Amino acid sequence: MYKYKVPITIVFIILFLSSEKILAQTKVSHKINPDEYAMIKSNRKDGRFINARGIAQSMLRDEKPKLAYNPNFSRTQFRNWQKKVKEAMKKLMNFPDLKTYNAPSPKMLYVKQKDGYKLQKWEIYPLPHAAVRFLVLVPNKLRRTPSPAVFCITGTGGTKEGMASAPFPFNNKVATTGPYRKKYGKHNKMAVHYAKMGIIAVSVDNPGFGEQADLSNVANRGWVHGAQILAKKLLELGWSYLGYSTFLKTKILKWMEKQPDIDKSKIIVSGLSLGTEPLMTLGVLNPEIFAFVYNDYLCRTRERQLILTKPDSKGYRPIPNHSIIHSVPNFWKYFDFPDIVASLAPRPVLITGGGLVRDIKLVKSAYKKVGEENNFKVNYYNEYSDPKNRSNIKKLPEGISRAAYLRLENVVPSRHFFKNKVAIPWVKSILNMK
Amino acid sequence: MYKYKVPITIVFIILFLSSEKILAQTKVSHKINPDEYAMIKSNRKDGRFINARGIAQSMLRDEKPKLAYNPNFSRTQFRNWQKKVKEAMKKLMNFPDLKTYNAPSPKMLYVKQKDGYKLQKWEIYPLPHAAVRFLVLVPNKLRRTPSPAVFCITGTGGTKEGMASAPFPFNNKVATTGPYRKKYGKHNKMAVHYAKMGIIAVSVDNPGFGEQADLSNVANRGWVHGAQILAKKLLELGWSYLGYSTFLKTKILKWMEKQPDIDKSKIIVSGLSLGTEPLMTLGVLNPEIFAFVYNDYLCRTRERQLILTKPDSKGYRPIPNHSIIHSVPNFWKYFDFPDIVASLAPRPVLITGGGLVRDIKLVKSAYKKVGEENNFKVNYYNEYSDPKNRSNIKKLPEGISRAAYLRLENVVPSRHFFKNKVAIPWVKSILNMK
Repeated sequence: MYKYKVPITIVFIILFLSSEKILAQTKVSHKINPDEYAMIKSNRKDGRFINARGIAQSMLRDEKPKLAYNPNFSRTQFRNWQKKVKEAMKKLMNFPDLKTYNAPSPKMLYVKQKDGYKLQKWEIYPLPHAAVRFLVLVPNKLRRTPSPAVFCITGTGGTKEGMASAPFPFNNKVATTGPYRKKYGKHNKMAVHYAKMGIIAVSVDNPGFGEQADLSNVANRGWVHGAQILAKKLLELGWSYLGYSTFLKTKILKWMEKQPDIDKSKIIVSGLSLGTEPLMTLGVLNPEIFAFVYNDYLCRTRERQLILTKPDSKGYRPIPNHSIIHSVPNFWKYFDFPDIVASLAPRPVLITGGGLVRDIKLVKSAYKKVGEENNFKVNYYNEYSDPKNRSNIKKLPEGISRAAYLRLENVVPSRHFFKNKVAIPWVKSILNMK
Repeated sequence: MYKYKVPITIVFIILFLSSEKILAQTKVSHKINPDEYAMIKSNRKDGRFINARGIAQSMLRDEKPKLAYNPNFSRTQFRNWQKKVKEAMKKLMNFPDLKTYNAPSPKMLYVKQKDGYKLQKWEIYPLPHAAVRFLVLVPNKLRRTPSPAVFCITGTGGTKEGMASAPFPFNNKVATTGPYRKKYGKHNKMAVHYAKMGIIAVSVDNPGFGEQADLSNVANRGWVHGAQILAKKLLELGWSYLGYSTFLKTKILKWMEKQPDIDKSKIIVSGLSLGTEPLMTLGVLNPEIFAFVYNDYLCRTRERQLILTKPDSKGYRPIPNHSIIHSVPNFWKYFDFPDIVASLAPRPVLITGGGLVRDIKLVKSAYKKVGEENNFKVNYYNEYSDPKNRSNIKKLPEGISRAAYLRLENVVPSRHFFKNKVAIPWVKSILNMK
């Protein structure tokens, strides 16, 4: 007996020790057929889902926006609806109650003479712990005094300095410039383009980017990292990234309205990409804003969540609008982006990057209703400038990829930048400038 | 002139084409000194922050929990406070209004005879689109009839099958078992341990894991991916991962309470890691639950957010509790984890993984107050079984790493699993079983 016992034990020990390695080697690399799983659909007779993604998807499908724009509104119904949109937006943006907070006066940090304009840097104190900075470009020769002014909001990863051709207040460009300056830096100098026109431009950051990023002056991290962590904390605090962003930007807008150089009846908001979100919220909450340059394609963000579900071969479905910096609790219960833009009528709006014809028509109907059809202007990418080339479907199909989606939206994603050649002439026209 | 013009143009073209490459090569790899940036602190005289992380950090610091447990409560104050904790929790968990929904009856999917117990699989329909499955282990010889029952909740990446030694209903183990089965699979068969004791065990998934994961049967993805996407959607729908999880688990609890085999006055909730969160919410919302096995160390989750700030050399600060599956809007405005556990007094609670002496003492004071000190039992890791070896500080310092934090909390993270050898004897003792 004893003769065999040791070897058998040893065999077991070897088997035990090697089992994890054996398992690791036999681990199958699962590849799936994306087409087969493109739709999130139940394979049960009762239509129910066992997986939670299917359940959440169904809940979103059921959650029809309460304040969707209806083209059949009478003018009175339209006006009442606009009020409701504003009330809902106020609730969603959830500004803090700061009745007992006395903010110090805004401070000018520097002024530099640049080619044709003065570059000022300012700081305001919108929250007890915050110092928020922005740049102001004042042309040497203003076309008018007081002057129209443009409130310039950059996209994800962009900075106020990038838009204003201003010196970076930190060493590390990698962490702060994002993808937008790489190829289209000249176009994206949004604030400079407006200043060169002869009107005042104000250039602001998005929270968590540029000077507002944690460790921005030293660390070389993923460019959206800081903003995501911020968004997580804000959600946990019962706020949201867009709510916080809108709050800070509202304070800067109110500062603008008080400047003697600025004609407060002629303030235009110009937003690129991520910047179109605060453009919409500011627009709804501040009826005194004169006009809007919406530097993106017009899309339905709620619909995008429902249809962008085709996984890659590893089983990862796209995350529409990637990051939680776009997440606002309960937003979709009220409206989608075209509803919000429709609620801006009759104020002038330029869409620089096209979109689905269905959504453009919807917004146009609101402008027709209030008798200002010409105040809503849409520029398509060159590839889609001929209406014959535009996809024009009523309902986007579920289960598509991001690339297929953007094609259906008439978008050329590789040329996602500030369309200065479209925006500047339009802004001149609405200001009756030559 | 012509002789030189061509070469100069070519030089410019070459310079232009190579500029991006040159820039890419000169890109500095920024490394920072983690100690230097460990604290999130302002370097300004006015104490304000320019970066948004500092602002959010300060807002969280200011947000003192409104319903923190106070050791000086009278017994009446304590009872009133418990009611308020329950009301706040109800609000935070935000269950949907389903008055018009008639759920089909629960269904048993299979029953199998196993070694000493019957394994049943059940399905209930808590939401219009949902079919939620759980396992029930009924010992052949129940120690009592009707029997006490344990509601077993696994940790991140775990599954009901892992806890119940049940067959996986899908092929792909990689995507569904998570990290918990690898080394401590035997310990983590939580439901089996209880069934072997002779009492009924119910084994449930966490949302987005196991059978509740999207594409779980085919795809080989990161094990927390599906749950994170789910959490994002739930936050956007105005809900939260913990709210959804608590809702489904409440429905299973209510099912348990109706089973003739189960003594509804002797239902115990046993949660591992992530599972301790629904343990706490279920405990607060359902005063009929008899006792709790809290398989983790007792920590303050809000405090952890404030102090875990020491970055790595790339400038990434730790994300306490990693994923948004732990994010519940406004939770921190009301309480921290020890407050919630204190509110469970006088019901029996076992903490299996120690924690900071300060927090243990705090909860103990609540049990003393209601005259049931012995109902709160804490087991430390062996390394800290001698009180002399335990760190015992009143206030954890800001600016520490995750490893330093866990050391201060008296935790051995490498042995994070279900402590069956501690839990089973304790459960026997509170049930007066031998």
